[in-house]
Amino acid sequence: MFYVGIDLGGMSIKAGLVDENGRILKKLTCPTGVERGAKAVVEDMARLTLDVVEQGGAKLEDVKAIGIGLPGIQDPETGRVPFCTNLGWHDVPVIEWMHEIVDKPIYIQNDATVAGLAESVAGVSANVKNSVFLTLGTGVGGGIVLDGKVYSGSHGVGSELGHMITVAGGDLCTCGNRGCWERYSSASALIRMGREAAAQAPDCLIMQKAGGCVEKISAKTVMDSAKEGDPVALKVFDQYIYNICTGLVGIINFIDPEMIVLGGGVSLAGEFLLNAIREKLPTMVFYKTMPYARIELATLGNDAGIIGAAMLGR
Amino acid sequence: MFYVGIDLGGMSIKAGLVDENGRILKKLTCPTGVERGAKAVVEDMARLTLDVVEQGGAKLEDVKAIGIGLPGIQDPETGRVPFCTNLGWHDVPVIEWMHEIVDKPIYIQNDATVAGLAESVAGVSANVKNSVFLTLGTGVGGGIVLDGKVYSGSHGVGSELGHMITVAGGDLCTCGNRGCWERYSSASALIRMGREAAAQAPDCLIMQKAGGCVEKISAKTVMDSAKEGDPVALKVFDQYIYNICTGLVGIINFIDPEMIVLGGGVSLAGEFLLNAIREKLPTMVFYKTMPYARIELATLGNDAGIIGAAMLGR
Repeated sequence: MFYVGIDLGGMSIKAGLVDENGRILKKLTCPTGVERGAKAVVEDMARLTLDVVEQGGAKLEDVKAIGIGLPGIQDPETGRVPFCTNLGWHDVPVIEWMHEIVDKPIYIQNDATVAGLAESVAGVSANVKNSVFLTLGTGVGGGIVLDGKVYSGSHGVGSELGHMITVAGGDLCTCGNRGCWERYSSASALIRMGREAAAQAPDCLIMQKAGGCVEKISAKTVMDSAKEGDPVALKVFDQYIYNICTGLVGIINFIDPEMIVLGGGVSLAGEFLLNAIREKLPTMVFYKTMPYARIELATLGNDAGIIGAAMLGR
Repeated sequence: MFYVGIDLGGMSIKAGLVDENGRILKKLTCPTGVERGAKAVVEDMARLTLDVVEQGGAKLEDVKAIGIGLPGIQDPETGRVPFCTNLGWHDVPVIEWMHEIVDKPIYIQNDATVAGLAESVAGVSANVKNSVFLTLGTGVGGGIVLDGKVYSGSHGVGSELGHMITVAGGDLCTCGNRGCWERYSSASALIRMGREAAAQAPDCLIMQKAGGCVEKISAKTVMDSAKEGDPVALKVFDQYIYNICTGLVGIINFIDPEMIVLGGGVSLAGEFLLNAIREKLPTMVFYKTMPYARIELATLGNDAGIIGAAMLGR
């Protein structure tokens, strides 16, 4: 039996033919073309599905289900997609439109949730019963796996971990609240913190790496400078690690998962990031002598979206 | 079939004979006497169990299990109780000692978790699949019910909801972190905020109700003054409602329960508290047009500890 996983993003649609164990057998990509409207995008997802099955050497009758990971949520009542960040979608009948072209069971989930599921099937959290996956990127997304299954809550609005409030009254968030965790722990936050610090210390390594141009400072510039021991970058990095840990502590003290998996652009800093978090966290958890969640890096990278989406139908 | 539920607190041990539906048939109480040491307390729990079964007109062979709710946690590895707040217990073999006197299956859980279970069996969250229970008291405790069952995490250290960080870098907490939610949303927080405000405004109604003595200001004094429209008290109350909502938003955005139940001393403010939260929360949740958790008041009061403990064995 095969599965098709679709990873819908603002820039591209990726579709993969995936086997029972989460292995990608064939992968195809096309541009999203958001400006064409939702119907055209959904039709492309359906056609890419048919193409990837055929080019993967499979038959449609051997495909059990299609899964879609997208930057939004599905309304469990209507089955429609009420929102999609960056795509400007409102109340789109994705399944209905897909079914006009391909008649298979279709499952839809948030992209971070899907990536978390992928890790729990074929990645670092394989065989872990309860895990929380985090994408530290432009924002902070979350995926929850409980008892081996995707958990998205009673109304489908859960796992928005970036919008736990960790700094009440703090910076304004796109969601309208102040002090959401992602304001302080996303890649965007690290960039902002790095730029502010570098503007105050023009001789620092961060600034040198950015060719003296504050606007060119990226998350990687800050991380690399900290790795090389630059004091300005290290100060930013220490604060950033604390910011990440404020939310991790909430996750641990709340649902106490077996593992927390770090994905997204920031996680590319690898062991340097991981070791700093693993050093800070034990001083902050509530039960200081009891075991708590292992913190690990995601391993599937860009394929997580396809694999996790495919596994929704398993 | 019957169950025995034991509610162990710093002041008293309460034991109840409970039927399958969570109804208390007989209830007995004795002082805890913490100063006598853990062994004496555990022996009293065992004897109270035998007494409540006999005086309830039941036979020990009709008792399926004994449940204990206590202000601590059980180590799932050892079965022992590594900590018990206010009792000064460390690594106490509760089950082993109980079994020297009464030979029945014994289940142990945190007191807030147990109260949440009680509400989900015989209280306001009966028949609710996923719920979060909060005790707004001296601190803030939490109980999680997922899929109708108690959820305390992968290592038994979950549901410590009062120790989500909502004000990073804020007030120092007993747990060693700064800015834990309970520092801002417990009864103690309301009292502190009321006292600070009243000290600045000696003519306010809060101060009058406390007979001009700041030390006599209680959570009830502040709540009652706010109910009567005192501007100083209302300002404190508004801030307090915001503080509560910062954590509620985290709970909703994280695990999106079907219901959040408010218990503990603060919840005695009733509809006044509930209405204020229900008015504030919709402006703060992430998905503003999607349904989210109903917020309700606990209904079982002091019996929740006995009922929930008994239901652990069901």
